[in-house]
Amino acid sequence: MAPEPILIDGHWRAADDPVDTFTAVNPTTETPLPAEYPVSNWAEAEAALKAGAEAAEDLRTVEPEAIAAFLEAFADNLEAQADEICRLAQRETALPVEPRLRSVELPRTTDQLRQAAEAARERAWCQATIDTARNIRSMYAPLDGPVVVFGPNNFPLAFNSVSGGDAAAALAAGNPVLAKANTGHPGTTRLLTEAAFGAVQSTGLPPATVQMLYRTTHDAGLKLVSHPLVGATGFTGSRSAGLRLKAAADQAGKPIYLEMSAVNPVFVLPGALAERLEQVADELFASCSLGTGQFCTKPGLVIVLASEHSRAFLAAVAARFRSPAGILLGEGGVRTIAQAVRRLREHGAELVVGGDEVDELGYRYENTLLRASGAQFLAHPQALQTEAFGVVSLVVFAADAAQMAAIARCLEGNLTGSVYTHTAGDDDALYDRIAPLVRQRVGRLLNDKMPTGVAVSPAMNHGGPYPATGHSGFTAVGLPASMLRFGALHCYDQVRHPRLPPELQDRNPTGRMWRYIDGAWTQRDVGDG
Amino acid sequence: MAPEPILIDGHWRAADDPVDTFTAVNPTTETPLPAEYPVSNWAEAEAALKAGAEAAEDLRTVEPEAIAAFLEAFADNLEAQADEICRLAQRETALPVEPRLRSVELPRTTDQLRQAAEAARERAWCQATIDTARNIRSMYAPLDGPVVVFGPNNFPLAFNSVSGGDAAAALAAGNPVLAKANTGHPGTTRLLTEAAFGAVQSTGLPPATVQMLYRTTHDAGLKLVSHPLVGATGFTGSRSAGLRLKAAADQAGKPIYLEMSAVNPVFVLPGALAERLEQVADELFASCSLGTGQFCTKPGLVIVLASEHSRAFLAAVAARFRSPAGILLGEGGVRTIAQAVRRLREHGAELVVGGDEVDELGYRYENTLLRASGAQFLAHPQALQTEAFGVVSLVVFAADAAQMAAIARCLEGNLTGSVYTHTAGDDDALYDRIAPLVRQRVGRLLNDKMPTGVAVSPAMNHGGPYPATGHSGFTAVGLPASMLRFGALHCYDQVRHPRLPPELQDRNPTGRMWRYIDGAWTQRDVGDG
Repeated sequence: MAPEPILIDGHWRAADDPVDTFTAVNPTTETPLPAEYPVSNWAEAEAALKAGAEAAEDLRTVEPEAIAAFLEAFADNLEAQADEICRLAQRETALPVEPRLRSVELPRTTDQLRQAAEAARERAWCQATIDTARNIRSMYAPLDGPVVVFGPNNFPLAFNSVSGGDAAAALAAGNPVLAKANTGHPGTTRLLTEAAFGAVQSTGLPPATVQMLYRTTHDAGLKLVSHPLVGATGFTGSRSAGLRLKAAADQAGKPIYLEMSAVNPVFVLPGALAERLEQVADELFASCSLGTGQFCTKPGLVIVLASEHSRAFLAAVAARFRSPAGILLGEGGVRTIAQAVRRLREHGAELVVGGDEVDELGYRYENTLLRASGAQFLAHPQALQTEAFGVVSLVVFAADAAQMAAIARCLEGNLTGSVYTHTAGDDDALYDRIAPLVRQRVGRLLNDKMPTGVAVSPAMNHGGPYPATGHSGFTAVGLPASMLRFGALHCYDQVRHPRLPPELQDRNPTGRMWRYIDGAWTQRDVGDG
Repeated sequence: MAPEPILIDGHWRAADDPVDTFTAVNPTTETPLPAEYPVSNWAEAEAALKAGAEAAEDLRTVEPEAIAAFLEAFADNLEAQADEICRLAQRETALPVEPRLRSVELPRTTDQLRQAAEAARERAWCQATIDTARNIRSMYAPLDGPVVVFGPNNFPLAFNSVSGGDAAAALAAGNPVLAKANTGHPGTTRLLTEAAFGAVQSTGLPPATVQMLYRTTHDAGLKLVSHPLVGATGFTGSRSAGLRLKAAADQAGKPIYLEMSAVNPVFVLPGALAERLEQVADELFASCSLGTGQFCTKPGLVIVLASEHSRAFLAAVAARFRSPAGILLGEGGVRTIAQAVRRLREHGAELVVGGDEVDELGYRYENTLLRASGAQFLAHPQALQTEAFGVVSLVVFAADAAQMAAIARCLEGNLTGSVYTHTAGDDDALYDRIAPLVRQRVGRLLNDKMPTGVAVSPAMNHGGPYPATGHSGFTAVGLPASMLRFGALHCYDQVRHPRLPPELQDRNPTGRMWRYIDGAWTQRDVGDG
């Protein structure tokens, strides 16, 4: 059987002289799925970049309305094929069709594409800024080359390299996308790419607006993100892979946006435990076990003050963790969880529940709860922040408020940080001490809420300080803000009026686009005071 | 005589065990100025970082109004000492007191500080975004550590590490600044730092809000920008120094914003030459010779179509270049210009005027005009874009429109790109072919205007694609946009209302702050429809 075709420059074609081939594995049955996929050689990756660079140039003359229509057609196509897509995604990832894939993740994906369409149409993302007195005008505009997207294994649809948040943001900002499929779900990615390419064709966008390779060599990946023709890269995945790509891109001066890893600390203050211990335990386990713990925002570190209540809390959480293990996305997941748990234990964390692989069909690792003292954590703060990508969490018992603050000060950059407090204010003094420390170390601060569930909201920040991401100023989720990653700031100084892009001409191009004119945000035309 | 004191943690103190000392040199007389300045050791640099990190924490509870008052007091202090500052700056840089320093650069500096004060007060920079339905709120907030600023040699006041655009933006965004003086004008930097610190004291800000070192070892500089306690770095200077710092900062995941080098291409289309050859020649020479050619935006590359008109244009420009050489900022300037001119000539550029050092007192290099054919340029596009930081410009004669377009495609990332065209439209077809290519390769596109003169306007972009800067999405000049370099995106998810920062509470904290609420920019309170 020939390997599956790749999509380059508007053509589904057989990979030319592939370096290798690979198959996806059904994590439930531990057996390879039938289709074979090519590992593309560098020449092929470069051909895609070249076609993408031409598409980038062509896209500059395409109306935002056409891009919006494409994103909506893409969403429609996904809905039309929803059952097939979700069935295959289930086989490739072991994530359940219902409710996860069909009723949660697919709607999230199409909603995100439609929000991206609306953002493209509205054009507010480009922050058109006009200084009428000096006749200087600026806006964010698409990059000078395609955006390469590396998608993660854990959201085969909503963070997929072709249909997920990075792709939607890059496309809405007017950039072509070169998707590198996650090798865990290549078949799903093919179906999604078909839906995307169908929309490209039906709406008449440049053929290379969307391209897809299943896999390249590691070396070719490094070359891709640092190539002169690339506009930028979006990556969601492991810290080790992310940092390798970052080093290559940085050296070439190419922007790269990474969403890597986090333990997402949750501080549960004494009053909250006194008030609603069981409820918090419920919420913690629910958040930890969502998607078999394979969420970027899974709470992997819980900090409490040592007390009778917190010991009872640990027992309550432990009871919930003593439940059957779910199936992981792949064999690699079992291995990396085992490594992480080993590292945690080597640095003083004690097992409370779990800690071993499950000897049944399907890739599984026991739900695992660990504990450590605050002193142990402070002795090995880095090791005890090792991310375990599964249903694994470490509860740290701080001796007192000062030690809890010291722990907060040791936190690495994280996507999120949660603080649970007493509803009537009993914890407020401690909150005021802890929350400012957490605030500086996370992208999203939550109150009385677990971090899983990343709303596609204009106010969302799915980002945070390094090493959770590569840059604390950008979000990977939330439109239109996420589009700013894929824009360059373009200034026009005394450019003759008819030569200005419509967004910067005196007349508001849509009649409702928000622009920053002479220090005020407005939907009016220039001069229409 | 003891070396001059440094400012660390609120104290002017003698450098502790300096690695070395240095003096500034008067470029006009080629003699060292009397004061001696220390090269700080690493321990001292680290002490400044630690004090800066504490100040960063303290500043988080300081009202924007207090920061604005500080910036205004700083501007007032500069004006009170203007004569002394400008006299010393003149001795250290050879830039004339009038009009340059006293009537242009100092007013620019104080205007920029006052604009920064207004931006701090208005708070629009933080782009507060509120999703009321989901109760998710976000904004840009200060970083988790001090901003290190490396200032350039060419603007001793307006881009000075303590009083220039980077410092103003970082401070206005609520960050402390650790200034690394440019070693060309340490005495000026000391006076500016005294003005800044006086304002820190009179307005009661944390003492380490502003700190200053004259110099460190290169190694200590690399450690500074990559240190866990640093928030970010702003750098303006040479490409080689900038890229070394970038590599160190990138590896540590620390943001660094660089404004490095550019040749600022100017395309003069045939109709413009037919119409106003002498005027364009005047403008070109004026722009090239401003500040003895030591402007980041100096036009170092001019592209014309080969014709009788363009040969006459070259002659007209040459006549203007045959004027006395100005005094450069330092001896190093003579050396780097000579190297750059040598490199240009080695790759086919021919001398039209100048090309040698001037054997008189004062660091001088002849005004130098070179020419090359389009074919030569295309054979060595990189070498022929070598920046020569002085009154040096290369005129390239493209054989035809296609070759001119090919040249535009070879441009590196630049700060600016200018296109001169016929006023009545004779060049419009060629403009439409060239301008889109230039557009993607520059931060600021100009029409019929030379690039020097970077207005401090909200719509300015003093930035551009790599390697002109490190990131095409940010500007170093123009408030409030330049502040975004020194902010992190902070999201609040279900955070209890009284715990939100004032910028994100329902009530508009100033009554006029612009916020993005439920998809619309508004100055109203939440719920006040």
